[in-house]
Amino acid sequence: MNAPTKFDGLEVGYDVPALPGMDEADIQTPCLVLDLDALERNIKKMGDYAREHGMRHRVHGKMHKSVDVAKLQESLGGSCGVCCQKVSEAEVFARGGIKDVLVSNQVRDPAKIDRLARIPNFGARAICCVDDVANVADLSAAAVKHGTQIECLVEIDCGAGRCGVTTTPDVVEIAKAIDADEGLKFAGIQAYQGAMQHMDSYEERKAKVDISIAMVRDAVEGLKAEGLECDIVGGGGTGSYYFESNSGVYNELQCGSYAFMDADYGRILDKDGKRIDQGEWDNALFLLTSVMSHAKADKAIVDAGLKAQSVDSGLPFIFGRDDVKYVKCSDEHGVVADPDAVLKVGDKLKLVPGHCDPTCNVHDWYVVVRGGKVETLWPVSARGKAY
Amino acid sequence: MNAPTKFDGLEVGYDVPALPGMDEADIQTPCLVLDLDALERNIKKMGDYAREHGMRHRVHGKMHKSVDVAKLQESLGGSCGVCCQKVSEAEVFARGGIKDVLVSNQVRDPAKIDRLARIPNFGARAICCVDDVANVADLSAAAVKHGTQIECLVEIDCGAGRCGVTTTPDVVEIAKAIDADEGLKFAGIQAYQGAMQHMDSYEERKAKVDISIAMVRDAVEGLKAEGLECDIVGGGGTGSYYFESNSGVYNELQCGSYAFMDADYGRILDKDGKRIDQGEWDNALFLLTSVMSHAKADKAIVDAGLKAQSVDSGLPFIFGRDDVKYVKCSDEHGVVADPDAVLKVGDKLKLVPGHCDPTCNVHDWYVVVRGGKVETLWPVSARGKAY
Repeated sequence: MNAPTKFDGLEVGYDVPALPGMDEADIQTPCLVLDLDALERNIKKMGDYAREHGMRHRVHGKMHKSVDVAKLQESLGGSCGVCCQKVSEAEVFARGGIKDVLVSNQVRDPAKIDRLARIPNFGARAICCVDDVANVADLSAAAVKHGTQIECLVEIDCGAGRCGVTTTPDVVEIAKAIDADEGLKFAGIQAYQGAMQHMDSYEERKAKVDISIAMVRDAVEGLKAEGLECDIVGGGGTGSYYFESNSGVYNELQCGSYAFMDADYGRILDKDGKRIDQGEWDNALFLLTSVMSHAKADKAIVDAGLKAQSVDSGLPFIFGRDDVKYVKCSDEHGVVADPDAVLKVGDKLKLVPGHCDPTCNVHDWYVVVRGGKVETLWPVSARGKAY
Repeated sequence: MNAPTKFDGLEVGYDVPALPGMDEADIQTPCLVLDLDALERNIKKMGDYAREHGMRHRVHGKMHKSVDVAKLQESLGGSCGVCCQKVSEAEVFARGGIKDVLVSNQVRDPAKIDRLARIPNFGARAICCVDDVANVADLSAAAVKHGTQIECLVEIDCGAGRCGVTTTPDVVEIAKAIDADEGLKFAGIQAYQGAMQHMDSYEERKAKVDISIAMVRDAVEGLKAEGLECDIVGGGGTGSYYFESNSGVYNELQCGSYAFMDADYGRILDKDGKRIDQGEWDNALFLLTSVMSHAKADKAIVDAGLKAQSVDSGLPFIFGRDDVKYVKCSDEHGVVADPDAVLKVGDKLKLVPGHCDPTCNVHDWYVVVRGGKVETLWPVSARGKAY
C-alpha cells in the first residue's frame, strides 16, 4: 500500500474524492471505489491459477492504468510484468518501477518508436508487436540509436479483426526480419482474440479460441522449422484464459478485467452456465454515486452520467439491489427507476460499470476501501495516456 | 490567447500531444484539435445572434471544460458568464477568472453546498438550481456561515425528465422559500429542455419547446403574482436557441455545442431542412488519429478508440472524406473501412466525434491550430471535475 502522501495538500471534493481514514459514507461522488478485499481475492486467485497451470501472467495494465494495482498484481498474484496498449502507458509503468513491459500493439509513429526505444533506460524490458515488415527497420534504427534493445512479437489476428497478420508465411517473414535486424530480438507471438471474450456462451467462446489456438500452433511450428523459438506466446483474457492455459502452445496470459470485473464481463457464463461474477470473480470496482434529486415520485436522479463512465457496452447495474434500476444515462445524470420510492436525496449507490477499461480512464483516482473505511487513494497513473 | 508557458518542461508525447509552432503534421495522436478560425467564427456568430435578439448568453462550460475557451467566448462572443454542472467545475471557472458562474444543477451534498457557498470568495457570482424546498435551508446555512450570497434558480423540468419540478405552484413554493431565507437570493428560473435538442426535425423540436415556453410563461406569471421577479429565465441549447430567443419570456441562452460541433448535433436539420453543420456552424473540434496498421487490404486500423472518445451518441465521422469510413470502435482502436486501399500507415484523419462533451472530458489538452501550425495548447481545465 502506498503512503497517502500523494494527495497531501489536495482538497477533498476539488482535487480528490476522499481522504484515507474517512468513512465510506463521506466519500464525494461520483468516483471510483475499489473494494480491496475483493481485489486481493481476484488477484490471488488468478495468480494461483496461472502458477498451477505453468503459465506466466502478464497482467493487462490498459484496464486499470495504475502502477499501484500492477504492483499488487506482482506481489500478490506473481505477475511477470505488464502489457499495455500505448507507448505513453508503457512509460508510466516503466517509470513506476515495472520491469517488464509489453506494448501489445503496433508502434508506427517515428516519435513513438523513439520513445519506445528509450524505455529500457528506465530499467525495463521493452517489447512491442509487429504486423508489417516495413516497421522492422524503423524499430531497429531507434534501438541502435539509443543503444537499447526492443523485443518484438509478431502479432497474429486470430479473430479480433484489428491489427495482425493472418498466415504463417507472413508471421515467419516478419519474424525473420526482426531476427536479422540489429537492436531487435524476436521474442515470439502475440495472439489475443478480443472479439469473443464477451460472448455469453462458454462453448461459443471455446469454438473461437480453438481456431486461434490452431493458427498459433501452426505459426509456432512454422517458426521452429526456420530455427526461430518463441520465448513468449501470449494472449488470453478474462473470458478465455482457461482455454489458452490448456492449449499446450500459449505460455503467457494477458488478463485484465478479472481484477475489477464489470457488468459486461460479469454476465458471460462459465462452463456450468453460471455468470462469472457469481463465484469466479468478485466485483471489486464500483462507481459510487449519490441521489441528487427525487422531484418525481418514481425516479431518482443520480450524479453519475457519461462524464463518470463509458456506456459503450451497456448501462451499469446497481450492486446488491433489485428494487431500483439504473435505466438512463446523460452527460451528468443517471436516471434510476425507483417504483416504490425507496430512495431519498443523499442516498449512495454502488454502480457496477458496463465496461471497466474506458470507465477507469475518465477518473483520476481510485478510492481504496476496506471494512467501511478509506484505506488509501491510488492515482489512475496512466489516465489519458493515449498517445 | 494564453502564453504557452503551462506546458514548458512537459514532454511531447508523454505529457502533451504537441508544442506551439509545430506543424499540424507533427502532432502526436490521438488528440483533440481545435480549428481556431472555425471556433472564432462560431463564437462570434452566436454572440452576434444573442445581442441582436436582446438575449444574454451564458455559455455552457460543461461542454468544453476550458477556462481559455470560456474567456474567448467572453471577449469575442460577449457571453455574460458560464454555466456548468458540477461545483468542482464552477470552482475551476471561478478560480480561472470567470465572474458569473451558474451550476445549472442541484447541489445537495453538504460538502458540495459548503464549497458552493465559498465560490463568491474567488470573486464570482454563484448561482445554483433548486427543485426541492428541503434544499433551501442547507444552502442558506452555508451562505450565512461563509458570509456570502448564493443566488438560486428554481429548476423546471420542461421535458428532459431529470431534475426539476413540473407545476407552477411548486415553482412558487420553492421561490418563496428561497426569497425568505438569509444568504440566498431568488434569481429566476432554469428551464432547459435537453431531451429534444437532438431531434432531427426542426418542427418536432419546435413543438417540444413550445410546451416548455408555455410552462415557463405560466411560472413567470405565477411568480409575478406573488411579487417575485425573475432576473434570469434561462435555457436553450444549440438545437433550440432561436425558439427561446423569440419566446418573449426567456432572457438567457445556455448553448454549448455550437462552439465545437459534433456528429450527433451536426445531423439535426434547420428550418430549411439543412444539416446544421453545413452552414449554421462550422466543425471546430476534431479528434486527430493516425493509421497504425493496414494488414488487411480493405481496412485501416487507427489509434483512436474508446479511450479517446465517447461513442454514446454514435461513431465519429471522418471530416472531408467520403472514400473511407470509421465503422467500429474498441478500447484502443478504430476500424476504418478503406475499400479502395487509399490509406497508408502514418496517414492522419480528422474525426468529428459523435458527442463532444464526454469526448472532451477524456482529454487533457486542446491543440489549437491555425493555418497548418499549432498556435497554442489549452488545458481541458475542468477535465474529470465530476464531484
